[in-house]
Amino acid sequence: MTKPMRSENFSPLFHDFCNEVVIQKVFEDEVISTYDYIIKEEKVSFLLNNEKFLSVMSIAKNQDAHIVGFLLSEAVIQSVDDISAIEISADGLEVNVSAKISQEGYANLFKEKTLTSGCCIGVTGNAKVCYEYSFIKTPYRVKAKEILQHIKVFNKPSDLFDATGCVHRAELILEDGTIYESEDIGRHNAIDKVIGQSALAKRDIRKSILYTSGRLSMEMVVKCVMHRIPIVVSKSAVTFQGIEAAKEHGITLVGFARNHKLNVYTYAGRIE
Amino acid sequence: MTKPMRSENFSPLFHDFCNEVVIQKVFEDEVISTYDYIIKEEKVSFLLNNEKFLSVMSIAKNQDAHIVGFLLSEAVIQSVDDISAIEISADGLEVNVSAKISQEGYANLFKEKTLTSGCCIGVTGNAKVCYEYSFIKTPYRVKAKEILQHIKVFNKPSDLFDATGCVHRAELILEDGTIYESEDIGRHNAIDKVIGQSALAKRDIRKSILYTSGRLSMEMVVKCVMHRIPIVVSKSAVTFQGIEAAKEHGITLVGFARNHKLNVYTYAGRIE
Repeated sequence: MTKPMRSENFSPLFHDFCNEVVIQKVFEDEVISTYDYIIKEEKVSFLLNNEKFLSVMSIAKNQDAHIVGFLLSEAVIQSVDDISAIEISADGLEVNVSAKISQEGYANLFKEKTLTSGCCIGVTGNAKVCYEYSFIKTPYRVKAKEILQHIKVFNKPSDLFDATGCVHRAELILEDGTIYESEDIGRHNAIDKVIGQSALAKRDIRKSILYTSGRLSMEMVVKCVMHRIPIVVSKSAVTFQGIEAAKEHGITLVGFARNHKLNVYTYAGRIE
Repeated sequence: MTKPMRSENFSPLFHDFCNEVVIQKVFEDEVISTYDYIIKEEKVSFLLNNEKFLSVMSIAKNQDAHIVGFLLSEAVIQSVDDISAIEISADGLEVNVSAKISQEGYANLFKEKTLTSGCCIGVTGNAKVCYEYSFIKTPYRVKAKEILQHIKVFNKPSDLFDATGCVHRAELILEDGTIYESEDIGRHNAIDKVIGQSALAKRDIRKSILYTSGRLSMEMVVKCVMHRIPIVVSKSAVTFQGIEAAKEHGITLVGFARNHKLNVYTYAGRIE
């Protein structure tokens, strides 16, 4: 059995999001003891006006963008202008938003729970509120070649994925080329974080593309509807409810974007 | 543009879980219109004594096993013997369990919500209840060679995965070789379904291995603790909280099981 060796290319950058642990690699005829990087998820508490309403298992980074994206996705707030302050605790495990919340906003926070396809309960886009939004007609068009080019970069494993094999990735690309990016153990979290970043920067995202590494189930489409994002691209599969929601709300849904090819499920007209 | 062709090897089997839709395959210099299989997730309502407590996005199959596995995983019931009847509605979208529920059982159903790494809220293993369980000392040992052999079969894409690229898989293998298997869009669902199947068959699973295609985060380990499953094997990554929970409760945690190799993170003594 080889003696465990601390990996030499250990980057201090990973300290925040990974732990290094000793594991046994078992082959058919050999066992090796070695160090390995393991993603460190944290239980982050979300508070609204000093009252805790949720704990989220996530990577403790961009917590302010995360809570803002979440509150917007769930239609608890209508705009970042409703927020008067955001505080993150010293240990990073508590984020408190001070904001004016309407009665409907509070109601949206405590809607009926549905266990979503990802695994568990959402609170993952308020479909009902979403349905009150009108059809998205944004006349934003993008060249297929551009998406195919960008997806090659997007699908490349990041350092964090290389080290842990355990993160989802999202990018929001605006018309002027601005990119907001995020990695998280949860695909919903990664998306809420890029949306929150753009909201905190007060950017208009009605002409943008959302890239995600995760599956496009209905909740993802609902997030796009809530934020008026006309095009969403994933390297993974789409679900039937995802297609139905995209059809109903005018979202261009692109899946299996990889290896010089992409599948367009709805409103292919936006892809030139 | 090629005229859409209904795929000829379309199996009627898929009708229950897939829809066939027309999509555009966009290549760098070509667009093809074609049929594709899309997974059909359904919103299944879970009822306890005729009262709805949850909706679950899932594949509408093995709904009885699913609700039983869920209620056991969440410590709402202690045993399948607590159940007097299970009814599935004609359309398959409602499952009602009639059962004696203790006060603690009801309390466990409405514990504090945590958005888990998968994406959203759990209700994904009651860690607190779990911590009251004692350390799992089951002296069950398995040959590494056997796991490596089985994982080759387990990791092969199923017909449903081949068609849709959108399902997780779980298998529970008992000491006598009995296999319970399940596929679902959610990794939690797939696990609850195999556990529910074994419970409905009144099998002892204290000497068993749980195989899963999904990541091993804490909630998965908690499920193993709740059901006294000593070994859990995944082809995917593990998280740090997953390792911590496995250490604390005596679960053998195996990740990245693929290509003639597996990583053992805790209690390697059970792997010969």
